[in-house]
Amino acid sequence: MDSLTAYKAHLAEIAKLHSAQALLGWDQHTHMPKKGVTARAQVAGKLSKMAFELFVSDKMGEYLEELEKKDGLSLEEKASVRRVGRDYRRHQAIPPALIEEFTIARSEAQSAWVKAREISDFSVFRPHLEKIIDYVRRFADYFGYEEEPYDALLEEYEPGMTSERLREIIAPLRNELVPFLKRLIDDGTKPSADVWKGTFDVETQRSLAKRALEIIGYDFSAGALDDVAHPFTTTIGPGDVRVTNRYLEDAPLSGLFAALHEGGHALYNQGMGEELYYLLLADGASHGIHESQSRMIENQIGRSRPFWHFFQPILAEYFPQFTNVDPDVLYRSANIVEPSFIRVEADEVTYNFHIMLRFELESGLIEGSIKVSDLPDLWNEAMERYLGITPPDDAHGVLQDVHWSMGSFGYFPSYMLGNLYAAQIFARLRSDLPELDEKIASGDFEPLLSWLRENVHRLGGIYDPNDLIERITGEGLNPSYFVSYVTDKYSEIYRL
Amino acid sequence: MDSLTAYKAHLAEIAKLHSAQALLGWDQHTHMPKKGVTARAQVAGKLSKMAFELFVSDKMGEYLEELEKKDGLSLEEKASVRRVGRDYRRHQAIPPALIEEFTIARSEAQSAWVKAREISDFSVFRPHLEKIIDYVRRFADYFGYEEEPYDALLEEYEPGMTSERLREIIAPLRNELVPFLKRLIDDGTKPSADVWKGTFDVETQRSLAKRALEIIGYDFSAGALDDVAHPFTTTIGPGDVRVTNRYLEDAPLSGLFAALHEGGHALYNQGMGEELYYLLLADGASHGIHESQSRMIENQIGRSRPFWHFFQPILAEYFPQFTNVDPDVLYRSANIVEPSFIRVEADEVTYNFHIMLRFELESGLIEGSIKVSDLPDLWNEAMERYLGITPPDDAHGVLQDVHWSMGSFGYFPSYMLGNLYAAQIFARLRSDLPELDEKIASGDFEPLLSWLRENVHRLGGIYDPNDLIERITGEGLNPSYFVSYVTDKYSEIYRL
Repeated sequence: MDSLTAYKAHLAEIAKLHSAQALLGWDQHTHMPKKGVTARAQVAGKLSKMAFELFVSDKMGEYLEELEKKDGLSLEEKASVRRVGRDYRRHQAIPPALIEEFTIARSEAQSAWVKAREISDFSVFRPHLEKIIDYVRRFADYFGYEEEPYDALLEEYEPGMTSERLREIIAPLRNELVPFLKRLIDDGTKPSADVWKGTFDVETQRSLAKRALEIIGYDFSAGALDDVAHPFTTTIGPGDVRVTNRYLEDAPLSGLFAALHEGGHALYNQGMGEELYYLLLADGASHGIHESQSRMIENQIGRSRPFWHFFQPILAEYFPQFTNVDPDVLYRSANIVEPSFIRVEADEVTYNFHIMLRFELESGLIEGSIKVSDLPDLWNEAMERYLGITPPDDAHGVLQDVHWSMGSFGYFPSYMLGNLYAAQIFARLRSDLPELDEKIASGDFEPLLSWLRENVHRLGGIYDPNDLIERITGEGLNPSYFVSYVTDKYSEIYRL
Repeated sequence: MDSLTAYKAHLAEIAKLHSAQALLGWDQHTHMPKKGVTARAQVAGKLSKMAFELFVSDKMGEYLEELEKKDGLSLEEKASVRRVGRDYRRHQAIPPALIEEFTIARSEAQSAWVKAREISDFSVFRPHLEKIIDYVRRFADYFGYEEEPYDALLEEYEPGMTSERLREIIAPLRNELVPFLKRLIDDGTKPSADVWKGTFDVETQRSLAKRALEIIGYDFSAGALDDVAHPFTTTIGPGDVRVTNRYLEDAPLSGLFAALHEGGHALYNQGMGEELYYLLLADGASHGIHESQSRMIENQIGRSRPFWHFFQPILAEYFPQFTNVDPDVLYRSANIVEPSFIRVEADEVTYNFHIMLRFELESGLIEGSIKVSDLPDLWNEAMERYLGITPPDDAHGVLQDVHWSMGSFGYFPSYMLGNLYAAQIFARLRSDLPELDEKIASGDFEPLLSWLRENVHRLGGIYDPNDLIERITGEGLNPSYFVSYVTDKYSEIYRL
């Protein structure tokens, strides 16, 4: 067997273990009973260790070394060798036993987080989080970094990103958006949310979410929609990309936009060929780029005027009280700007502040300048500083996100980057498809999906985020697209 | 590490893979989308191969050899060494690559079977079944046997059972039950099924099934109930034993009894300690013994007069049309004897005939005296011979069961043995708990469950079926208990 064939067979073995791991994870959040948690942590730990051992095996090192010198590889194969090679070198220094321990700790921390959030008691989660941070710091040291240990973690989610570059991006964003938010609140005309008052049957919301996913082109014969506490999308394997969602009886927009958001992620993975999965290129260009796909479907599409002109009669099929509501009223009411506690419920203007807060806290936790036991207080202080509000309890504050329980430090900035990438990519998409608004308003999502398939989805992880954004838009990441998008849109809605 | 500790650690690794495999299997039948099938087959094949390689590894052989000579093992450890050792010797001769191939073929065959059954077209399934039988025959040769290749397969499900012994059991059963069935039909007063006429909302049936499972003591915090085409129960791991079920709009008893049946299986596994799972003793004493637990809950309990006296008002909570129905009418209508096409819908008197038919056909397929292409015709002929009826199509005939698509040849006889064990164990349970009828009639299932926990469940696979039945009842398998149970019960119901 030549080295390329052997390399591909080796990656396929890893991909199969990843598939089983993804299913274990999906099940843990959707269907697994409480008493299954201890055994599940063991099983997940075992598979994780096996996949890791294969990934950092000497064989892998040999294949990579040979293939890095080899000519005649396809674009996809070359990309696989480059990205797998980079990850191989990062992870190879980590003892496999540590990974297994970490996976078990993580699985237990997740269950503790679910419980802590349910009863809004941070102390239930605290010892687990301390353990997790301890592991994550050790990983950062193993990965290596030039400036700050946090950079080693960022690299995992956004190749090429650093703390310094993030601070460079955040400064102007904050300088532009803080005064803009103030102008909106002080001088703007806030749309009314009255139209969404009332109680909305959850089962009907679930059906509406399903319908919305079908509308944007999500393929249910290659996926599923299940209930969870905190929505996510997961690729179980080629032909099996699952969305999860939650519904609030008194806030139907929450479940609808979460479905569109997760649907955006799912379209990305459903648009990648099977080959990319087995070359380990099916995670996308980066977490930030992945997030751009979900945010674009949620915001640039789902929170747009043409969408609501199309969607109003569909909404009325499920909730007849909307039968005679002006689509423009729905559009405006779906775009209310208001400092709020929950990141995933935040509007487009305040969302990035939630990320700036998390970036500040988690980089401090990793650096060691912040203690876990101080986290609830620091969280609440930072909320006051960024958004001028204080959470009523930890469930609405420090316990709201699953990420830290999963050990995903360095992940949060991807959400902000996703917003920025989305605005920049969407500006290009608009200029390529001048008739986009009319198409969306008439319910034709095909041109949108085709453009995304061609320019983003089918490429999976072939390009790094910097290269991809330049390939699509002709320039590197430029936050000014987001600033223009948000200020134009909300100046009009708030009649500034 | 001493050999016992090493052995247990080795088994625990296998058990973890089994847990992942169980989840993959459960998901394939409950939630996996159609397009996920190809990748899933690959993943299942990979895990299956890994578990198999660990099971038949040289290390395992060494541990077993040392432990077979070692003193001071606990009852559970000794049983593990004995049963794992036996399976090790059976499977060790099989090439691991063949197992992986087989698992892939099996996974594809199952999907083909689902499709074939949907459109009632045996030809869709035929080539897959031929492949499966080819594999199974090769396995029989690898396992080894004294008299007939089919015996090698039987041993997998019912240790100690042979084709010859089965024929010995079947002959008197047939001699007693064929004339008894004729008497029932010719001279008996058939109860009316009119009370079950109508349409029964599936969602309400699902809630009722959930309630019935709670009533018998199934622990939902260590399990789940999901929809499938063909109900099964699966142990994902300690604390996670899941039931699946289906519901027919025009036959609510079908879903209810299937829930009780699967619930009986689930109680068995929920009643085993975690230790047994990691010693690979959590499959129970045998498939026949496992089936005795499901059949007892379904029939000896669920189809009993005291059960219906207790259950009538509960049924009426879900379906108010039963509010004023006499419990005795329900009892009698739940015990109608009638030759029918579908095994899982068969009554207690005719059920074993469905098994005799399958035993005849599958032993012929393995022996080579029957060709797959002749199977639909032979099936229909045998139905005529045993039950006097001919299926309208293959979906109601040869395609009704999942087992052959899974390569589970030698499995069907367990169903009949389950009926026989159930009657024999229940006779003992009755004499130990003279007040059982009153307890059940008052909705107190605790004494029943405690007895089963103590005498059957907690023992898991510690004893072989012969030893277990003797331990519980003081004698080996004796079909006369079943004959008495069935003839007494139905003579009364049919007023013979």
